[in-house]
Amino acid sequence: MRNNRAMSVRPHRIAVLALDHVVGLDLGTPSQVFSTARSSAGASFYDVRVCTPGGRPVRSTAGFQVHPDHGLDLLDTADTVIVPGIHDGTALTSGSLEPEVAEALRSAYRRGARVMSICTGAFVLAAAGLLDGRRATTHWAYAERFRRLHDRVDLDPGVLFIADDRVLTSAGVAAGIDLCLHVIRLDHGSEVANRAARRCVMPPWRDGGQAQYIEQPVPKATDTSTAGAREWARQRLHEPIALRDLAEQARMSVRTFTRRFRSETGLSPAQWLLQQRTDHARLLLETTDLTVDQVAHRSGFGTTAALRQQLRQRIGVAPSTYRRTFHPRAELIGS
Amino acid sequence: MRNNRAMSVRPHRIAVLALDHVVGLDLGTPSQVFSTARSSAGASFYDVRVCTPGGRPVRSTAGFQVHPDHGLDLLDTADTVIVPGIHDGTALTSGSLEPEVAEALRSAYRRGARVMSICTGAFVLAAAGLLDGRRATTHWAYAERFRRLHDRVDLDPGVLFIADDRVLTSAGVAAGIDLCLHVIRLDHGSEVANRAARRCVMPPWRDGGQAQYIEQPVPKATDTSTAGAREWARQRLHEPIALRDLAEQARMSVRTFTRRFRSETGLSPAQWLLQQRTDHARLLLETTDLTVDQVAHRSGFGTTAALRQQLRQRIGVAPSTYRRTFHPRAELIGS
Repeated sequence: MRNNRAMSVRPHRIAVLALDHVVGLDLGTPSQVFSTARSSAGASFYDVRVCTPGGRPVRSTAGFQVHPDHGLDLLDTADTVIVPGIHDGTALTSGSLEPEVAEALRSAYRRGARVMSICTGAFVLAAAGLLDGRRATTHWAYAERFRRLHDRVDLDPGVLFIADDRVLTSAGVAAGIDLCLHVIRLDHGSEVANRAARRCVMPPWRDGGQAQYIEQPVPKATDTSTAGAREWARQRLHEPIALRDLAEQARMSVRTFTRRFRSETGLSPAQWLLQQRTDHARLLLETTDLTVDQVAHRSGFGTTAALRQQLRQRIGVAPSTYRRTFHPRAELIGS
Repeated sequence: MRNNRAMSVRPHRIAVLALDHVVGLDLGTPSQVFSTARSSAGASFYDVRVCTPGGRPVRSTAGFQVHPDHGLDLLDTADTVIVPGIHDGTALTSGSLEPEVAEALRSAYRRGARVMSICTGAFVLAAAGLLDGRRATTHWAYAERFRRLHDRVDLDPGVLFIADDRVLTSAGVAAGIDLCLHVIRLDHGSEVANRAARRCVMPPWRDGGQAQYIEQPVPKATDTSTAGAREWARQRLHEPIALRDLAEQARMSVRTFTRRFRSETGLSPAQWLLQQRTDHARLLLETTDLTVDQVAHRSGFGTTAALRQQLRQRIGVAPSTYRRTFHPRAELIGS
């Protein structure tokens, strides 16, 4: 299949279905990512177009009206149909959809088209019945609402995207970029996808899933998780923090704590702590006038040399270079 | 300043200036990122609006016309002006700009507004003279053209964004998200910015700069870089590859090779090789019907156990779970 597609004369046709309250960034994602997928001779593999019900203008969340070139009949000839996220509308509030839109989506799927959603676009596919009995994902902040409306869908809000046969759904917002890159990989292999990713200034794959981005409620004292210990550590990043102290905060043995910590964060306590210290140092370098030495102390690296080594390894630059790039008035600060 | 802004009654006003051939994803970025920056009580810190010259419709690269609510007078009262990327127009081709647009931008800057660009939006700021004598960045693929047109700008295409006093520029496409998060961090601190990042399913900071995404020309045999050795390694990922062999390919001592390798990639040869093997395994799990055992061999992990351990550490899942999530027809493949 890959070779047939790559060699076919006409580009693969993608129809992006914009509904009222469409998320502006999601609407721009397919054309951006797929248009950067080209043969080595520079020919486009994909032809991306936008349609709306009746070809009528729709309002985007980004402060403008979208005037499309096409109506729903674009779905009749599309090889792939993509539904970007929406911020309002009946699909989100009651799980229902205008009958003509639902039927156009179902008919495209029956005809053999691949169907995809970005972010809350999954609510639209679900309202059309296309996710029944399937695994799917959506923006983490909408997972509970999705489950309430669609109990026949096997929702996994912990991943960046899910491919279930010809139906592919992505997590929130930027995860739409990951999904589009994945589809390019399926259709044309990793070399073309990697080139497209570089054009979008995104990695071809991200480590971890949507789970790492989910907002966690503030931990309660009775929690049997390691979240409380993390909060405790975040408030004293300027101090040395031993694994023993962290485990004690969570009232666990070091061994249990380490195991649970890793399963909750995907990192060892030491890796996590180093990341927190580095992030705190970056914040201080970007937004304060503290000297590099003060930043090293406040972020718990102790010495400038230790901070320098960590920044070099993670970002490839020295603290002063980092500040010169990212601090709006770097030249006024002594080092 | 941070506190004043956070406590002020009216939200910070952001004007997004859309010109003809505006990049759809860039146009959707500011509203998406800034609208997720809210106080703990849920109040918006920013009010994002879109304008065009004369309030006239402009064509986006994403297959639709943009009909804005405002004309250039929106710039008269904006606290921040953002110019998204464009794919065509005189700013890109000859470095010139309609006088009324250039003057509106300069006047906003003189009045004290913060001015930002995303991707090739830097060409617009430069054409208005706002980048003269400043450090700035733009999409890596346009760096050479930018330098040719604007020799008074100190361009650094190796970073994701640059803050030079009140003028901030970002690298290509997705780097616009990083820049908007940075500005939220400057205005309201890291807690608000981290929350916004999670809503966008993006990390609050990315490691490394735009440099890691730049497309490298195919290395020549006479190259004194380590690129040829990397290409050589990529073609035999199924085999064990020793540091000694890599250095030999580049005709360098192990020590010189390691130092140069790190300065070119930001990674040690061993880290890089592990990343390549993991990426190759992910590709095979996502797009082929090979068994997990075959994938482990073809990606050079040798044993399923080694592949399993690496996937767990990097992504937190087992190979079979990974395939079940990302392979369109996972259920048909034996493990």
